[in-house]
Amino acid sequence: MRGVISLIMRKIKLLIEYDGSAYHGWQIQKREPTIQSVLEGAVRKVAGEPSAVIGAGRTDAGVHALGQVAAFTTSSELPPDVIKKALNAVLPPDIRILNASDADAGFRPRDDALRKRYYYIIANQRASSAFLHRHVWLVRQPLDMKAMTTAGAAVVGTHDFSSFMGTGSGIKNPVRQIFSLDISQLRQIDFMTAEFTGDFIKISIEATGFLRHMVRNIVGTLVEVGRGRIPAESLADIMARRDRKYAGPTAPANALFLERIIY
Amino acid sequence: MRGVISLIMRKIKLLIEYDGSAYHGWQIQKREPTIQSVLEGAVRKVAGEPSAVIGAGRTDAGVHALGQVAAFTTSSELPPDVIKKALNAVLPPDIRILNASDADAGFRPRDDALRKRYYYIIANQRASSAFLHRHVWLVRQPLDMKAMTTAGAAVVGTHDFSSFMGTGSGIKNPVRQIFSLDISQLRQIDFMTAEFTGDFIKISIEATGFLRHMVRNIVGTLVEVGRGRIPAESLADIMARRDRKYAGPTAPANALFLERIIY
Repeated sequence: MRGVISLIMRKIKLLIEYDGSAYHGWQIQKREPTIQSVLEGAVRKVAGEPSAVIGAGRTDAGVHALGQVAAFTTSSELPPDVIKKALNAVLPPDIRILNASDADAGFRPRDDALRKRYYYIIANQRASSAFLHRHVWLVRQPLDMKAMTTAGAAVVGTHDFSSFMGTGSGIKNPVRQIFSLDISQLRQIDFMTAEFTGDFIKISIEATGFLRHMVRNIVGTLVEVGRGRIPAESLADIMARRDRKYAGPTAPANALFLERIIY
Repeated sequence: MRGVISLIMRKIKLLIEYDGSAYHGWQIQKREPTIQSVLEGAVRKVAGEPSAVIGAGRTDAGVHALGQVAAFTTSSELPPDVIKKALNAVLPPDIRILNASDADAGFRPRDDALRKRYYYIIANQRASSAFLHRHVWLVRQPLDMKAMTTAGAAVVGTHDFSSFMGTGSGIKNPVRQIFSLDISQLRQIDFMTAEFTGDFIKISIEATGFLRHMVRNIVGTLVEVGRGRIPAESLADIMARRDRKYAGPTAPANALFLERIIY
């Protein structure tokens, strides 16, 4: 008679916040530190066995997250809250587990996501800040909010977003549905204090999903509209051309935040 | 007849903002990068000659500044605003020149300062944040604001602050005058968004000057009062003992901000 080792495998769902400044994006790379590789190292320490940590959104290098979702399968019997605390104890301070919970064995963070929400922060002011440079895109030229809002409304809906797709992504179907694109001005952004006032523009986008660099290419195009270099009315035409070269430049990664994954 | 080189020396006053996270404090050290050494390197590039950059306050490693003041002497004829822009062009993004102006030849940033103002930020909440960890001290235990306010009022005035002086400073006269100590609660600190709410405590202190670690030792003591470990009424007694061992621990450097120098 042979011994039987009974392993009950569980799936743990994580809600994760990270400052992406020090990382080469979500996805594991051979040499550079990534969010996924650091998380897998932490899970290995806490669960005592290696597990793949699968994320809902593969954020680019420098992109941040307030609500990334990921999951891993483990035979660890630790309660979710203990897993959360133990992970936070071994993770660096710029990656934080906000919540850990048991999930169905079939839960797939990426494929099960119904919607994703990102936002982007533009500091539309003259001076750069020693404290905000990791998290905003400084655009010194005053931007035309009305034109940007008109242009932003044109991308809402179901469209072929090839014109906003980064090259080399290998995606077959470039059609996505944008549910909302909101542009708001924040006049008093305080970092602990009333000192850092200024004009900030927050662009929030919610969609079924995003092509490579899609948010950053839309933001880069909206800023060209705000500068008066691209007419606000030309967005439909830019999309109809399905060619990256007609849209504006890619906005920097460091001001992009993955806000929420909706299941 | 020998050639005469006429050098008109000017004094330039700088208002400086920096995120101290990556630096070993203000003062030049042999091996480690400091704010002063980076500034002197930038001034050398811009003015084309080496100059000592003298600061008003020698902030510790990890301490930040919103309004550090410094000055240097130069034969450069560049207008102050050009100097400001040129310095910002060569400085790293976490050190920013907010203003540059011509000053009297006799201006001494440190000795001429009448008052200095610092503030300290405590995040009095359960969870750490991936975005705030460089700039707040996380204290999970709820703090008694009323007791802290009572204790804080006791240090205002002219006192021998030996009990709050870091060892090894070699200061002969430990008497300073604290003009004000304000403790306020900030319930909605947003970093670009309404997401990061929480309970923050801001402690602002204005004084003629500060002994080594004085703000951090006062804050560390006030937090002990807030935790209920030191009675609020004992502050006068702690000061009267003139001995560092009676006060609370030194609060971490990373949540301290040099706010303003008053001349």
